[in-house]
Amino acid sequence: MKQGDLLYLGKAKSVYLTDKPDELLVVFRDDITAFDGQKKNVLLGKGVYNAKVTAYLYPLLEAAHIPTHFLSAVSENTHLVRKLSMIPLEVIVRNRAAGSLVKNYGFSEGQVLSPPVIVLDLKDDSRHDPMVNDDIVTALGIATTGELREIKRLALAVNDVLRENLAKKDLDLIDMKFEFGRDASGVIRLGDEISMDSMRLWDHGSVGASLDKDVYRKELGDVMETYAAVAERICSE
Amino acid sequence: MKQGDLLYLGKAKSVYLTDKPDELLVVFRDDITAFDGQKKNVLLGKGVYNAKVTAYLYPLLEAAHIPTHFLSAVSENTHLVRKLSMIPLEVIVRNRAAGSLVKNYGFSEGQVLSPPVIVLDLKDDSRHDPMVNDDIVTALGIATTGELREIKRLALAVNDVLRENLAKKDLDLIDMKFEFGRDASGVIRLGDEISMDSMRLWDHGSVGASLDKDVYRKELGDVMETYAAVAERICSE
Repeated sequence: MKQGDLLYLGKAKSVYLTDKPDELLVVFRDDITAFDGQKKNVLLGKGVYNAKVTAYLYPLLEAAHIPTHFLSAVSENTHLVRKLSMIPLEVIVRNRAAGSLVKNYGFSEGQVLSPPVIVLDLKDDSRHDPMVNDDIVTALGIATTGELREIKRLALAVNDVLRENLAKKDLDLIDMKFEFGRDASGVIRLGDEISMDSMRLWDHGSVGASLDKDVYRKELGDVMETYAAVAERICSE
Repeated sequence: MKQGDLLYLGKAKSVYLTDKPDELLVVFRDDITAFDGQKKNVLLGKGVYNAKVTAYLYPLLEAAHIPTHFLSAVSENTHLVRKLSMIPLEVIVRNRAAGSLVKNYGFSEGQVLSPPVIVLDLKDDSRHDPMVNDDIVTALGIATTGELREIKRLALAVNDVLRENLAKKDLDLIDMKFEFGRDASGVIRLGDEISMDSMRLWDHGSVGASLDKDVYRKELGDVMETYAAVAERICSE
């Protein structure tokens, strides 16, 4: 698979065209950012750990009949994926309260949310990714009511698969951020990474024993030691 | 009706107990505030204008079979209302984009929203009334899914009645803020005022010819002259 022109430069990944119009290459870089990009660093190895975890988890979702963009890992930091027309939403699924939910609404840290709470943020750096609701999404023309229903259904299904698998590794899946897109046939598929950057993971039974990007955000320890250990733990059988 | 102890002191209204346990007196004060309470003034007569408009509009809603808290106007600035257990949400219905919708999401000023967009904010001054969604509302235990459905149904019904009536007075109803509560039987009823403080009104056919609290927020002219003229216009037949 030939790596073509750069299509999109994200904060932590670069997306390249290939010689097939409906396939792309995603390169996981070693950049890490937080707080709306205000904090940023390069941590050697980060891209490989996140690519490894993403490549491990995506096939579990496909096996559960969840449509995704993932095709294959072509190197330790590069994935071949289907080209999607991305829907500019961050779809956040929360099983327990943490982060902004605690800060903004007064939930207690670790409070169980059953059923899970879904929050939608507009993916728009220039506007600092403001929270939206279904009415705003449809008024902006970002997605139809039917697409939003499908996105939420898929987000909860992905949450179920991930949560169950991670529980076997003694990891509690607190919350996670997904992005979805439409393939050439209009089918909604999960895109983006599923990694320590996009999931909040706590050591089983703890409140706040972070094994994810919160270690970087809150300076709780050696970020790359944590990522290495968690990647090993997730990808073990 | 005897005015009893003060039950609740709002930014612009005071609510008193009466000698009946299920009835309250609402006094519309002359205080006006904006920007999360950062700007505040006393404008003589404001309470009377808002009370007059509220007392004119509520019976139109009752006539349209919308359950409300309103019982009667007992003086030019005081209303007798049913006691409700208020649901701490600001329910904002938007027919056209203005204010925060333009600022936060890039809608163009005056852009028509059809169907109307409903936004829910948590009524919590200490947290600066953050936006919520249905999942957050139910997780917080503020309202059930069924109650939220009824609140939205009522909000759109109220919007229809107000919009049609105000159109006859050459006023375009751009958006409005409602609050709802449960009566002793658990019926969801509209509470709070319906006034130039809670509705965004533009002179018919204009974009931004404000006849509401935006005159105060943005210092567009004499606030009390505007309120007097609009109250006269709304309450005319």
